[in-house]
Amino acid sequence: MPPSPEPDEFALIARYFAPLARSSPGSLGLLDDAALLETEPGQALVLAADMAVEGVHFTESDPPELIGRKVLRYNLSDLAAMGAAPIAYLLTLAKPEQRSSEWVGAIAAGLADDQDAFGISLIGGDTSASPGPAMLSITVIGSVRSGEALQRSGARPGDVVFVSGTIGDGTLGLKSTKGDLDGLATGDRDYLEDRYRLPQPRLALGRALIGLATAAVDVSDGLVADLAHICQASGVGAVIEAPAVPLSPPAKAAISEGRIALSALLTGGDDYELLFCVPQDRLEAAERLEEAGGVAVTQIGRIAEGTDVEVLGEDGKPMAIESKGYRHF
Amino acid sequence: MPPSPEPDEFALIARYFAPLARSSPGSLGLLDDAALLETEPGQALVLAADMAVEGVHFTESDPPELIGRKVLRYNLSDLAAMGAAPIAYLLTLAKPEQRSSEWVGAIAAGLADDQDAFGISLIGGDTSASPGPAMLSITVIGSVRSGEALQRSGARPGDVVFVSGTIGDGTLGLKSTKGDLDGLATGDRDYLEDRYRLPQPRLALGRALIGLATAAVDVSDGLVADLAHICQASGVGAVIEAPAVPLSPPAKAAISEGRIALSALLTGGDDYELLFCVPQDRLEAAERLEEAGGVAVTQIGRIAEGTDVEVLGEDGKPMAIESKGYRHF
Repeated sequence: MPPSPEPDEFALIARYFAPLARSSPGSLGLLDDAALLETEPGQALVLAADMAVEGVHFTESDPPELIGRKVLRYNLSDLAAMGAAPIAYLLTLAKPEQRSSEWVGAIAAGLADDQDAFGISLIGGDTSASPGPAMLSITVIGSVRSGEALQRSGARPGDVVFVSGTIGDGTLGLKSTKGDLDGLATGDRDYLEDRYRLPQPRLALGRALIGLATAAVDVSDGLVADLAHICQASGVGAVIEAPAVPLSPPAKAAISEGRIALSALLTGGDDYELLFCVPQDRLEAAERLEEAGGVAVTQIGRIAEGTDVEVLGEDGKPMAIESKGYRHF
Repeated sequence: MPPSPEPDEFALIARYFAPLARSSPGSLGLLDDAALLETEPGQALVLAADMAVEGVHFTESDPPELIGRKVLRYNLSDLAAMGAAPIAYLLTLAKPEQRSSEWVGAIAAGLADDQDAFGISLIGGDTSASPGPAMLSITVIGSVRSGEALQRSGARPGDVVFVSGTIGDGTLGLKSTKGDLDGLATGDRDYLEDRYRLPQPRLALGRALIGLATAAVDVSDGLVADLAHICQASGVGAVIEAPAVPLSPPAKAAISEGRIALSALLTGGDDYELLFCVPQDRLEAAERLEEAGGVAVTQIGRIAEGTDVEVLGEDGKPMAIESKGYRHF
């Protein structure tokens, strides 16, 4: 590893991060050069890495308790989309010089909550000062039985397209946190901002999709763009029936009050729901998914020949979709 | 994963990073939610994560070809200190807005060279814009036979302390790149700066230490501080004989010309040599380490009862060591 941080940052690691590693013997207390991870025979590891940069993925005023959790959940959502069970993670953190040790402690406290919620443990990482914005990078490790991981490439024409939960809350939550969505009822605002700030990785659903779904992805770039990712990887096209896409009551209210267009919710990002494809002959088994996954699943369309994602409106005609992909910047 | 970067950054990934993942089927072409890694029975995984921040670990004027390689080598050095063989890595990269795509390409080109040199492959990651400095974070995955990983905690009184290569070149190289070491011969300057900019992870040596060394660490914080890490983890003390510590000809010249004190080389960081302990009854086997590891190894002291690291000078008396740990900031 690079030369260690100042002694008081050694102390920060001992104080805030070593407790997050306590339940994992392979972390070696974060005191050795690397962590050890024993794997079980017949299991493949699943690895994902995501980062968040202050000013891009979160703002200076975001509660620090949520920053680490959010990056961890981006990663856990990736595991969910592969059908994997989480095991452990590594964290690198660049701390702006003006941030206090309490800021680091708040990030760690948030991570501690999520470790309990998702049965995962810190096993390694690194810290640095940052002369600019804060940055966090997390690598998560999960496992899945060899050969069983869900991928994006297995969708076939005729498969039914499902999505979990509700779509568009992430986009509305982001708009609300930015002050671009005034006049919301307090309850609706809290619900939407919470959905944006603290995504729910659909891990149980992902596990339940093994052997059932031909392809899966998490909705991070936007429903249309992420279905296009499945289509591209699988060499197929798809049709979405817009009226079938599940919306939360606050999202429905936002549309009916003219605050946002349905098409903006279908193309917005940050939902972290699972989008997946089920062949016709397995639809009966899909009826048990809601119980197994702990979240509603809804049929929203089908896989077709071709290469494009078509979105049909109320009238059954193709909707104009301005932008199929989420733009982050 | 978080919402994807702009389309032109999708293109950057396809252009510069996907080729780095081509030799690893488990990378899924960097096009899926996560990577898959099959593990062999009886092997434990070894994981380390390190980051580098512009303005802290490298400067704006450092050649981009070296930035990624340097972070990768920090990580590989951690694997070496555990006796592990590298398999794969994940990279997250935050690109300052003013940097061109060629800058990203140069980082990737450097990584490609090191992938060939170390038999390792990119399997996943993430990119983001940075409103501030560039940052890179790498998580490396290696493997070692279960139960055989070298750790810091096994040193026992009487063990002989060895170090590989030469010590102090990293510190001198850093000083030279900063302009704090004038008047060096060109060849010496190039040698020292190269040692600082492109550390050599001692992977073959690390593998050869399995079954031989009771404890090992890579010298990143400085010889004295890293031996103190072994002592702390093992519950022992140690004595270093300063005249026995191996120095390169440029380092010897720098001392004899009064440019730097020996004690500064013993406490400086960035050497990335291996520091390890061998019991007396295995010293004969240690004679074959140089051939197996491809680098000289030198006896520099011994493990003792106690808790402190003592450094003895030419006269056999304890040397004054101003600072035992490297300060990065």
